[in-house]
Amino acid sequence: MINKILAVILAGGDSSRFWPLEQKSFFPIFGKPLLYYCLSRLKKEGINDFLIVYSDKNASLLNEFITSYPQFHIEKVVQKDPRGMAGAVLSAAELISGRKVFIVGSEEVYEDSLVHNLIKNIQNDTQSLIVGYEVRDYVPGGYLTVEKGLIKRIIEKPARDKAPSNTVSIVFHYYNDPKVLLNYLRKIKSKKDDIYEKALDQMMKDGYRFNLFPYKGFWGYLKYPWHVLDTVNYFLDGIRGQNIAKSAKIDTRATIKGPVFIGEDVRILEYAKIVGPTYIGDRTIVGNNVMVRKSMIGANCVIGFASEIGRSYVGDNCWFHTNYIGDSIIADNVSMGAGAILANLRLDETPIKSSINEKIIQTNKNKLGGIVGSNVRIGVNSSIMPGVKIGKNSFVGAGVVLDSDLDQGKFCFVKKQNYMIKNNKFSVSDSFRREAGRKLRSP
Amino acid sequence: MINKILAVILAGGDSSRFWPLEQKSFFPIFGKPLLYYCLSRLKKEGINDFLIVYSDKNASLLNEFITSYPQFHIEKVVQKDPRGMAGAVLSAAELISGRKVFIVGSEEVYEDSLVHNLIKNIQNDTQSLIVGYEVRDYVPGGYLTVEKGLIKRIIEKPARDKAPSNTVSIVFHYYNDPKVLLNYLRKIKSKKDDIYEKALDQMMKDGYRFNLFPYKGFWGYLKYPWHVLDTVNYFLDGIRGQNIAKSAKIDTRATIKGPVFIGEDVRILEYAKIVGPTYIGDRTIVGNNVMVRKSMIGANCVIGFASEIGRSYVGDNCWFHTNYIGDSIIADNVSMGAGAILANLRLDETPIKSSINEKIIQTNKNKLGGIVGSNVRIGVNSSIMPGVKIGKNSFVGAGVVLDSDLDQGKFCFVKKQNYMIKNNKFSVSDSFRREAGRKLRSP
Amino acid sequence: MINKILAVILAGGDSSRFWPLEQKSFFPIFGKPLLYYCLSRLKKEGINDFLIVYSDKNASLLNEFITSYPQFHIEKVVQKDPRGMAGAVLSAAELISGRKVFIVGSEEVYEDSLVHNLIKNIQNDTQSLIVGYEVRDYVPGGYLTVEKGLIKRIIEKPARDKAPSNTVSIVFHYYNDPKVLLNYLRKIKSKKDDIYEKALDQMMKDGYRFNLFPYKGFWGYLKYPWHVLDTVNYFLDGIRGQNIAKSAKIDTRATIKGPVFIGEDVRILEYAKIVGPTYIGDRTIVGNNVMVRKSMIGANCVIGFASEIGRSYVGDNCWFHTNYIGDSIIADNVSMGAGAILANLRLDETPIKSSINEKIIQTNKNKLGGIVGSNVRIGVNSSIMPGVKIGKNSFVGAGVVLDSDLDQGKFCFVKKQNYMIKNNKFSVSDSFRREAGRKLRSP
Repeated sequence: MINKILAVILAGGDSSRFWPLEQKSFFPIFGKPLLYYCLSRLKKEGINDFLIVYSDKNASLLNEFITSYPQFHIEKVVQKDPRGMAGAVLSAAELISGRKVFIVGSEEVYEDSLVHNLIKNIQNDTQSLIVGYEVRDYVPGGYLTVEKGLIKRIIEKPARDKAPSNTVSIVFHYYNDPKVLLNYLRKIKSKKDDIYEKALDQMMKDGYRFNLFPYKGFWGYLKYPWHVLDTVNYFLDGIRGQNIAKSAKIDTRATIKGPVFIGEDVRILEYAKIVGPTYIGDRTIVGNNVMVRKSMIGANCVIGFASEIGRSYVGDNCWFHTNYIGDSIIADNVSMGAGAILANLRLDETPIKSSINEKIIQTNKNKLGGIVGSNVRIGVNSSIMPGVKIGKNSFVGAGVVLDSDLDQGKFCFVKKQNYMIKNNKFSVSDSFRREAGRKLRSP
Repeated sequence: MINKILAVILAGGDSSRFWPLEQKSFFPIFGKPLLYYCLSRLKKEGINDFLIVYSDKNASLLNEFITSYPQFHIEKVVQKDPRGMAGAVLSAAELISGRKVFIVGSEEVYEDSLVHNLIKNIQNDTQSLIVGYEVRDYVPGGYLTVEKGLIKRIIEKPARDKAPSNTVSIVFHYYNDPKVLLNYLRKIKSKKDDIYEKALDQMMKDGYRFNLFPYKGFWGYLKYPWHVLDTVNYFLDGIRGQNIAKSAKIDTRATIKGPVFIGEDVRILEYAKIVGPTYIGDRTIVGNNVMVRKSMIGANCVIGFASEIGRSYVGDNCWFHTNYIGDSIIADNVSMGAGAILANLRLDETPIKSSINEKIIQTNKNKLGGIVGSNVRIGVNSSIMPGVKIGKNSFVGAGVVLDSDLDQGKFCFVKKQNYMIKNNKFSVSDSFRREAGRKLRSP
Repeated sequence: MINKILAVILAGGDSSRFWPLEQKSFFPIFGKPLLYYCLSRLKKEGINDFLIVYSDKNASLLNEFITSYPQFHIEKVVQKDPRGMAGAVLSAAELISGRKVFIVGSEEVYEDSLVHNLIKNIQNDTQSLIVGYEVRDYVPGGYLTVEKGLIKRIIEKPARDKAPSNTVSIVFHYYNDPKVLLNYLRKIKSKKDDIYEKALDQMMKDGYRFNLFPYKGFWGYLKYPWHVLDTVNYFLDGIRGQNIAKSAKIDTRATIKGPVFIGEDVRILEYAKIVGPTYIGDRTIVGNNVMVRKSMIGANCVIGFASEIGRSYVGDNCWFHTNYIGDSIIADNVSMGAGAILANLRLDETPIKSSINEKIIQTNKNKLGGIVGSNVRIGVNSSIMPGVKIGKNSFVGAGVVLDSDLDQGKFCFVKKQNYMIKNNKFSVSDSFRREAGRKLRSP
């Protein structure tokens, strides 16, 4: 029966809260887009038919994906209706009518066992099954009211103090016949992005049966860009042992500790240290005196002399050079000049806030560095304050202390330092230096 | 006879010139307050009774001390009379009358042999004995005029060109009966902090016999905060061999040269180098690629990646991270962000001046870094100019060039950099980077 | 016959375009001035008589040279006539009349084989022989029009699009009788610095025979200061194997790769890495965690902790300390504070321009760092932008972002940062740090 279920993969969202990162369905981890992991998890458990709802903006990414991963049998439909999850499902209406379906968020990450166990739980008479997750802290999701294993209400993004429970819905929903859902979706009106949940809520009230499937393992999602860190961490924690490509060259004076994945033709030079779990993509160079700790580094990067990267995500083709990069997320093709720093801790050591669509959001992270879009260049001795985001194709000049987000395609530089040039009345005597040199050279 | 002498320990001064450091009697070196060393030196030579004159401000520190070091038999008296050394002695009047006494500065440091030899020199008919030290450069102290082993005059802090000799008094004075001294102290009036010396001077004129005990060994004192460096240096020079706690973990790729003390549970990571004489307190972590040279580091510190600390004093619980700290003094609980630097040399390489109570003082040091009070936070890429002092509980923001002292409890930050944001007309071509990468990766 | 030829060495130019470097004839490479190499190349092929045309400004340098290198038989004549190459030759008129001569640029560098082959090519009836070099890109030189091995025209510094050929004259010219040349030089008038070439051009038109001697090997010249890099590179490429003085001390934990010259009493400390071809002058200290790559370092330098020097020229007696110095040229007696950086790459990665005598010149280099005159001091955390030049005896303060040339004898500093000091409303809780420390220390 399982192999008859169609998996409807939602990949048409606009990712605006994910800025300056882009296209979360295609966000690459360990060299493959999240969509790949989403499909693999399902295929492994016997799901063979995939319908991907995409957007105009990621059409070419999807085509590329389909070519790169021919093992998946993929149909696709563009999301014409922009109204969030409801719009996505409605855009797929003709292709899903009359089929048993999973509706699956493409960028959410969970353990393989969830798919396995949920499928086992589907009975012939199951009308709908929704995965519920008990959250410790408030997250902006759909909150469920549950009675005896049945979901009685769902409310999308309630105010923090109005959440009816601490169980939220993971976007992994089963319907034995989506026709009913489609009808409700067509009827509901809302100005907010909650039509899907309002439709479900009305269905629940009207007696349609939603079973709860509780899940307690890892759940990663990419609403805000810093969520990348938790998801990458989950992937890193999955590395077992030291997987080092035969073509990789690791100097005997370098140190590698803990579980690592080190790709083809990687070079790790003298006095560098890698602390696992860490992933280093193909052809990346880890230079002299460099430290990489608990991070994912993409392919074709050059991590130059005396840089430190800790608990961070770095895309492909990035160049660093005596930088500190802590708890940061860096997209592809980024360069940083010597001495540039992504600060990751406030002076008062309190949790870091970030601005999303002009609203200040609490990240709940005491340590959070910069979030840097693709093709960015950061000048020497620049300081990027914790949680600051830089849009793609932007440049930050030398010596800038950047304390708020920088839009994409901008050049921010110290216009004219308030410096003074006067005649130098000081002369340098040889004596101090001669004496200092003598001391240094004496045994 | 010796064991009948009462040692009156002066620990009630206000330490204002010691700012931003505090409570010099309790200033910790190698994990113990200076007061401990002061008492130990005396006890070792048979002195068993201690009377500590303390102040309201350090009452709790003293109580803690008494609890921690029960080996000393301590009486205490609060200094009610604020008039410096005279006030201290007068506050103790009732407890010292009729006893032979030493009057001892709690924060002065000298060799054990001084105590030993001085005690041997006391005769039954010795009225008073004062330790005199021949200084090379002017120090702000009490200058002695000596004739045939007897001190004929004492003058406190004369102008630099009016010092009658180059012999100054170390505060280690013996009186066979302090009653006479007390009487003089009660009579002398002065608006300056020199009543004690004026009283002695009058006693000398009146024929009271003060023997000089000349001393030529090490003498350390803490008038100004940078004096810490000389005193710590003396302690460091006393380290013999390599004393490494069994619980300490030192990576085989770390390097340790010269005499060191390395405490319990210390960890020293790969490519770190310690150059002795150096002291590393318990549980401190010396991170990768770190250099520590001729310094005292307190307990529970984390000296992060690629930091360099040279000829410096660092208190407990400090966190560094790719910093340069040269010839500096850092109190407890200080953090510095990556790239922050305590500069220790003027561009013109001349001796460094410092401001004390709004007067500019010549430190006579060509190399002197920052002097940082407790609980200070210094942001990434900040530059603290040579000799600059930062009061406790203050924050210095990222990218600040701090060229004058910062009061305590302040937050100093770059208000708004004069930077400009415009559209980025530059685009980054792949070709340069591709070619550079090709060169790097070619054999 | 060869040993009868007089080599007239032109060393009287004013080097103004070479600023902030000075006296290019005496510019030292590998511990010896370029003049030494010029004379050695000739002497090796049998030339024994040298006439050096010098200037008032380098008279003492020349005297010192003559004393230091007695192996050369040197006559000298001061250049009284300031009119460039013509003035130099005319200043030597009396001493060269009636002799066969080479006229040789003292600071040009080429392979020994050029001298050897050119001399073989001189016949008894050769009137003049000029070395021609085929350039790939435009250089500001004398362009030759050649027909059947004879030079028919020469034009000095034509506009870039008006060069008649891509063959330029290397200043290595033979005349069997300079009398004719002298006559032409005396007749030609020009407001530009091209009298010599105009004289030759007229001689060519009048039928005097100039043979071309084509040369395809290395040709280095020092018109602009960045030309030093190409010339030094040629010297570095000549190092074969690892030449390490017996008195040099190289720690077993340091790494040396590729061809190097390491001078007397050099010390190379732990975790340092030298990548050849590299030259390290006598008594220089390469400190801990330092990287030197493909560079020439002078004598008596101290390259302090965690500095990186790549593809650069460094004079004698320079002190560095956690600096990045890439593709840069640094004269003698320069110091840089910790964190100071000579940036070598524009954010847009395009070729770097430089200002010469107030004209913007394209250097054609994508990577070019700072060019720093002698006795310069650069403060901590300063950033010198790519291609910026700093005149001798100047100071650059801490935290300066220097984006244009600084004249000599100046002090440039951040006048007053626009920073704000307010009461610190933040307090630092112990909890964050305690938890972070606990994590770090847990296994």
